[in-house]
Amino acid sequence: MRGIVKKSAIWELQLVRKLCVAAVAMLASSQASTDDDLMRAARQIFKPIPSIMPAVKDNPVTHEKVELGKMLFFDPRLSASQIISCNSCHNLGTGGVDAGPTSVGHGWQQGPRRAPTVYNAVYNLAQFWDGRAADLKAQAKGPVQARIEMNATPDHVLNTLNSMSDYVVMFKKAFPNEASPVTFDNFAKAIEAFEATLITPAAPFDQYLEGDTTALNDQQKAGLKLFMETGCSSCHNGINVGGQGYFPFGVIERPGATLLPASDKGRYAVTEAASDEYVFRAAPLRNVALRAPYFHSGQVWSLKQAVGVMGETQLGIELSDKEKNDIVAFLNALTGQLPKIEYPKLPTRTDATPPPSLGR
Amino acid sequence: MRGIVKKSAIWELQLVRKLCVAAVAMLASSQASTDDDLMRAARQIFKPIPSIMPAVKDNPVTHEKVELGKMLFFDPRLSASQIISCNSCHNLGTGGVDAGPTSVGHGWQQGPRRAPTVYNAVYNLAQFWDGRAADLKAQAKGPVQARIEMNATPDHVLNTLNSMSDYVVMFKKAFPNEASPVTFDNFAKAIEAFEATLITPAAPFDQYLEGDTTALNDQQKAGLKLFMETGCSSCHNGINVGGQGYFPFGVIERPGATLLPASDKGRYAVTEAASDEYVFRAAPLRNVALRAPYFHSGQVWSLKQAVGVMGETQLGIELSDKEKNDIVAFLNALTGQLPKIEYPKLPTRTDATPPPSLGR
Repeated sequence: MRGIVKKSAIWELQLVRKLCVAAVAMLASSQASTDDDLMRAARQIFKPIPSIMPAVKDNPVTHEKVELGKMLFFDPRLSASQIISCNSCHNLGTGGVDAGPTSVGHGWQQGPRRAPTVYNAVYNLAQFWDGRAADLKAQAKGPVQARIEMNATPDHVLNTLNSMSDYVVMFKKAFPNEASPVTFDNFAKAIEAFEATLITPAAPFDQYLEGDTTALNDQQKAGLKLFMETGCSSCHNGINVGGQGYFPFGVIERPGATLLPASDKGRYAVTEAASDEYVFRAAPLRNVALRAPYFHSGQVWSLKQAVGVMGETQLGIELSDKEKNDIVAFLNALTGQLPKIEYPKLPTRTDATPPPSLGR
Repeated sequence: MRGIVKKSAIWELQLVRKLCVAAVAMLASSQASTDDDLMRAARQIFKPIPSIMPAVKDNPVTHEKVELGKMLFFDPRLSASQIISCNSCHNLGTGGVDAGPTSVGHGWQQGPRRAPTVYNAVYNLAQFWDGRAADLKAQAKGPVQARIEMNATPDHVLNTLNSMSDYVVMFKKAFPNEASPVTFDNFAKAIEAFEATLITPAAPFDQYLEGDTTALNDQQKAGLKLFMETGCSSCHNGINVGGQGYFPFGVIERPGATLLPASDKGRYAVTEAASDEYVFRAAPLRNVALRAPYFHSGQVWSLKQAVGVMGETQLGIELSDKEKNDIVAFLNALTGQLPKIEYPKLPTRTDATPPPSLGR
């Protein structure tokens, strides 16, 4: 029952959700003696990814908008250097992230944090590790302007888009009721619409949640049970197995400076509340097995090691080798079906397209 | 008949092909009074791209090899930084090239030459601007090792590939008769096989060469006629409308240092023959309208301007505004159908995969 003790510690921080605790308590009381109990408990904490894409607030997702957004996502000419696209750091071929540890941007500058995945990002309560963007359309305006990422300006983006008639036509189709649809807001909305299609249903765990008890093997079930009993699911829950709340990195024991550099105070930079120092959005764990290295600092290359770190820092427990292996087996069951993406043929630059700029 | 004079100058350099001259002479003698004459002359100089991919010497192209090659082409983890792939500089979404003027590689270092396109590269007589690689499999070993490009070593490539079982399985399938198929040679062969699929048939000019006189409009036909009469087709001929021979940049008049930097002596670096100073492979003009900026130095952003430069430096003629527009219209008819490419889902890195290295 060591998990219960640790959950009390989290309770003191008022950061856990009643739902999780109730479900885990139920599981603990019954000792999860049957598959049915395990599935019932899991269903109270997690939700499967549906096979249809979600609706997006204030931004109806249409085919035209998605196609435009895909082009924008892959177009490096929207960066100052014209060699960096959204896909450079959120590579759809490698789980929606780059190789890490943290991203490399304009001028070979290295950013402070690991790129978060775009897959299933639409399900997060907010975007970025610190939740500073309310949604994907707000997020999409960030990296394109960041000096150490794409280093562009809204003017560069709009001049570039307006220089290519194919883009202008696509904006008109994607935003049919607007007189001047080529705007920075619509650029962001189109990217958001495309990203809303980047969902990965049909992971073994989804099939399990939908009632197929054979979708997880025994080791994965043992891992799922541990994941709930020890308290992992206090923070990593819901449809994205995380991404739904903010928690200190180091609930019980503060990690070393390699994993938690003192200079990056996480959500504190957003809220300036002392209680938000070193607080981050709980990492969504969908497809986590595809996305080493781990944590916002990207310093842990092994998923098993990351599980161990979480046990120590967040739960105050030292997981055994077998327990870590079981949890990793469960996490592997979170790998879903990545959507098929046809690589876009981008509009052709014209004499009016701004030239690249490599300087800082 | 000014084109004839200029062709004589090229003849003195013994660089043109008898076939072209014969065809142009025929065209000149008949004044190309009819569409039939024009088409007959064009068919003697150019060849349409077939709709089936070409065979590759010493490297049978199989589905398994192509699929593997596509993954390798898109996999940034094969570079030292793990953020640069073949596709970074030979972007299949922008005509098989990057934004230019010359490519940016490891450490934000800028290379000396414009990235050549991979589309239809299989039809070139040799690879690179100076033809230093005999074929695409030889070419594929270059940039991955170049210090200012991907900055990797064969060891890095093989260690990375061997660390991911999915890659090992794919190499076994692509090279079924080999005991240890994960080799640097086979890495290059798989990329060559994929690149052999990157052909772009069915351009309006292909349809024209295949007998459809309506596939080119009157302006494009006027441009085609000029292209042959003035002597452009002396160097830019064959299936790739170029890429078939080596010629000095500045046959008649040497371009300024911006377009022809003194430090880059072109093919001289390969052969060390004085006659090869500032000699380059004639640019293949398939899809040229997609690929600004132009020339090996990538300093001319307008296709019309590039046509003017070619007239002055290679043919010693000043083309009129109308003539340049007509030739550009013809060059636009060289844009073919780009193949559909499904963006690959790459194998997942493991604890054994080498970490990225950003330093020089």
